[in-house]
Amino acid sequence: MPKEEFNPELAQQLAVANRILVAQSVLDTFGHVSVRDSLHKDRFLLARNMAPGAVRAEDIIAYDLDSKPIDAGGRSSYLERFIHGEIYRTHPEVNAVVHSHSASIIPFGTTDVPLKPIYHMASFLGAGAPIFEIREAGGDATDLLISNNALGKALAAKLGNAPVMLLRGHGDVAVGTSLRQAIFRAVFAEVNAKIAAQALLIGRGHANFLNEGESMAAAKTIDSQVARALELWESEALASMS
Amino acid sequence: MPKEEFNPELAQQLAVANRILVAQSVLDTFGHVSVRDSLHKDRFLLARNMAPGAVRAEDIIAYDLDSKPIDAGGRSSYLERFIHGEIYRTHPEVNAVVHSHSASIIPFGTTDVPLKPIYHMASFLGAGAPIFEIREAGGDATDLLISNNALGKALAAKLGNAPVMLLRGHGDVAVGTSLRQAIFRAVFAEVNAKIAAQALLIGRGHANFLNEGESMAAAKTIDSQVARALELWESEALASMS
Amino acid sequence: MPKEEFNPELAQQLAVANRILVAQSVLDTFGHVSVRDSLHKDRFLLARNMAPGAVRAEDIIAYDLDSKPIDAGGRSSYLERFIHGEIYRTHPEVNAVVHSHSASIIPFGTTDVPLKPIYHMASFLGAGAPIFEIREAGGDATDLLISNNALGKALAAKLGNAPVMLLRGHGDVAVGTSLRQAIFRAVFAEVNAKIAAQALLIGRGHANFLNEGESMAAAKTIDSQVARALELWESEALASMS
Amino acid sequence: MPKEEFNPELAQQLAVANRILVAQSVLDTFGHVSVRDSLHKDRFLLARNMAPGAVRAEDIIAYDLDSKPIDAGGRSSYLERFIHGEIYRTHPEVNAVVHSHSASIIPFGTTDVPLKPIYHMASFLGAGAPIFEIREAGGDATDLLISNNALGKALAAKLGNAPVMLLRGHGDVAVGTSLRQAIFRAVFAEVNAKIAAQALLIGRGHANFLNEGESMAAAKTIDSQVARALELWESEALASMS
Repeated sequence: MPKEEFNPELAQQLAVANRILVAQSVLDTFGHVSVRDSLHKDRFLLARNMAPGAVRAEDIIAYDLDSKPIDAGGRSSYLERFIHGEIYRTHPEVNAVVHSHSASIIPFGTTDVPLKPIYHMASFLGAGAPIFEIREAGGDATDLLISNNALGKALAAKLGNAPVMLLRGHGDVAVGTSLRQAIFRAVFAEVNAKIAAQALLIGRGHANFLNEGESMAAAKTIDSQVARALELWESEALASMS
Repeated sequence: MPKEEFNPELAQQLAVANRILVAQSVLDTFGHVSVRDSLHKDRFLLARNMAPGAVRAEDIIAYDLDSKPIDAGGRSSYLERFIHGEIYRTHPEVNAVVHSHSASIIPFGTTDVPLKPIYHMASFLGAGAPIFEIREAGGDATDLLISNNALGKALAAKLGNAPVMLLRGHGDVAVGTSLRQAIFRAVFAEVNAKIAAQALLIGRGHANFLNEGESMAAAKTIDSQVARALELWESEALASMS
Repeated sequence: MPKEEFNPELAQQLAVANRILVAQSVLDTFGHVSVRDSLHKDRFLLARNMAPGAVRAEDIIAYDLDSKPIDAGGRSSYLERFIHGEIYRTHPEVNAVVHSHSASIIPFGTTDVPLKPIYHMASFLGAGAPIFEIREAGGDATDLLISNNALGKALAAKLGNAPVMLLRGHGDVAVGTSLRQAIFRAVFAEVNAKIAAQALLIGRGHANFLNEGESMAAAKTIDSQVARALELWESEALASMS
Repeated sequence: MPKEEFNPELAQQLAVANRILVAQSVLDTFGHVSVRDSLHKDRFLLARNMAPGAVRAEDIIAYDLDSKPIDAGGRSSYLERFIHGEIYRTHPEVNAVVHSHSASIIPFGTTDVPLKPIYHMASFLGAGAPIFEIREAGGDATDLLISNNALGKALAAKLGNAPVMLLRGHGDVAVGTSLRQAIFRAVFAEVNAKIAAQALLIGRGHANFLNEGESMAAAKTIDSQVARALELWESEALASMS
């Protein structure tokens, strides 16, 4: 079996995922999205080091769980590919990872105001959205990037079973059992952060968030509706790529 | 008379309504808009379970007031169709219903800051914008969705004669005697929420809202001008659909 | 001389002005812009009652200073045309008037926080931006619209020599000695309101506004640069109309 | 050697830079970007006085360090060209200068809230972002414009080694050793200001900014990734110009 072999359809789905996340203002010219390889569970697919808004299937590279490219063919890799490798290693149930600098989420990682679900669409946040403080794992003079396996391991450990984790002074990570679920969570975590911030401002620090029971119930229901959003986004992304 | 019969022009108007509400940032990939059937007053039209931004006339399904499809033809239905059925049953004067996750309105449903008319375009809000707290009707561990007739009935009762009702942790409902009026109210309720929030922030909790007399007078005048907005939005939506 | 005669080039410029103000988020489907007739100084030109985003030269109607159409040819008129007629009557130096529901400006009309110039581009605001409280002229149960000559006269009197006036619970008026100047002021008053609000929020009620000397000096300089913005906006608007 | 000679490729890059900065909401119809001439280190290139969104290579003029055009050919110059000339004279390491009215940055120049890096992408701000108060150099009744060499000299002195400087009541300046670096800094300073403001609002005046060690480390790393953003922006700008 050739080293680089992976499902070409999955690579195309990942290219589409990049375009969706740019269109939905989750990724800008930075950040990245990966998917666990369907043929080798100890590999994942990720674009070469480039702006996600231009990614095509031919830009996809396969990596092992040490985040080493199987066969990069001279193409350069994202500095933070270790986020992906270590999450896939630590969390076998995770099959897709989005790392972004979502503008509305960053403030919650830099204050003591927790990011909680303000509406049902982001009820998955009820399962928690921990903050990864890189100073604990890397000291207080890092460049904030998850640029090696040790930092990746610390980040993956902190994630636990949460669907979303904030990286202080940096951005966030959203994971899913599928590419569609990870995209959905990345998008609605950003929307939720924007709405929650506005609620906290007009409510002078107080807002009525979903409680635990509501979050659990709503997360299950909303999860069954992910396709409604993704089908439209995928068709729009495909149209923009042709 | 065949079971599914309804005015094809009305189905097309409803498809256009979906597109307008997406273009005006009231609906995203979720939410829905319905219209009372012009041929059977005990039926209403609603798109199949899909993102509103892609709805076409052929996606429209007729429902009875129990929110059961007359003939879905294998197509799936929105989980929250009961919002529509029960409002049409309880409020015979209502002929159109928009349910959305309007981003600027949600904060007002999760704080004790009431949504009031900050300018004449949303003077219809002077008639009240109650908050539906699902915990009262469904207990404190629902998924927040109006997914059965009992919840729909409670919601329709709470609505009363109000043009708009906020759903805590969820979104809102805007109704009208016509599709155009419901669209107009949904759009300007969202704009009003954005402006009112900003006024409350710079005014540190205080803003000079329309009083009752002004609201009543302005609502009547503005209602006579609905066509000005709708004619443009309809022509833009039609252009985007072709 | 036929009753309706006016310069067709001026009507086209006014149609373009409508499109610019929509593109710059000053007008939405409501609001209007007028220009004093170049052939009859006691007349002004204004679109028929329609959304400004669709106005073409053939939609322009001439009005006298009582805001009566010279020859409407069956076309309906804006309810608030009296804003324009009475300003042109009271202020001979004014040759163009924009009335809008600029979203960032409305909050300043409903709080006791004055709209002042936060940067040089809106230094014209240093000449004052009074608030028109319709309750003083029309009582406390009006529909807030300037729908007759008496209210128009009160509004024109309150304007004084100011370039911009806020209408509480409604919007604002921007005037100019030329169509280009009025457009420029309407656009940068809106941008200024957005920036000033943000400055007041992060500054907790305090911001370093332009002082009187700076405002006067900057207003003169910036006025000489109006064409830089307008040339681009006009060419973009013309492209969108063809 | 003809007076006006400069690298035509550099002029095209500068035209593209103008378009990028408009697309990224750093420049509107005002502001400008310059680059030091590659053939004569005591000259710089800058568009003629026009809206940056329409600049093409043929609109570029060469200036000496007194900000006098080498051969304007009858074309008019920006009133504030002295910003560029004096920065190039004082700071030999600077090869590109962006001057803009970035909307999210202006508030920080008008309050006592410093603009600091809230995330790694703007870690260059850790090197400082001083505020230029024109009242110190020009008195308290200027038009706020840097319209002569004396004001330009004062501004260039205040800049020091900072990558970005705020101009109170006006906007900001971002510099770089290359055109790409200056663009990158101008864009992410604006994004950072928006995120930092939101963090300060929800954090009620407190946010966890990057510390000095993090800023220094991250600035070095991020600087190595500038091409990722610029390659996409350049290709999008070129597509919009054809």
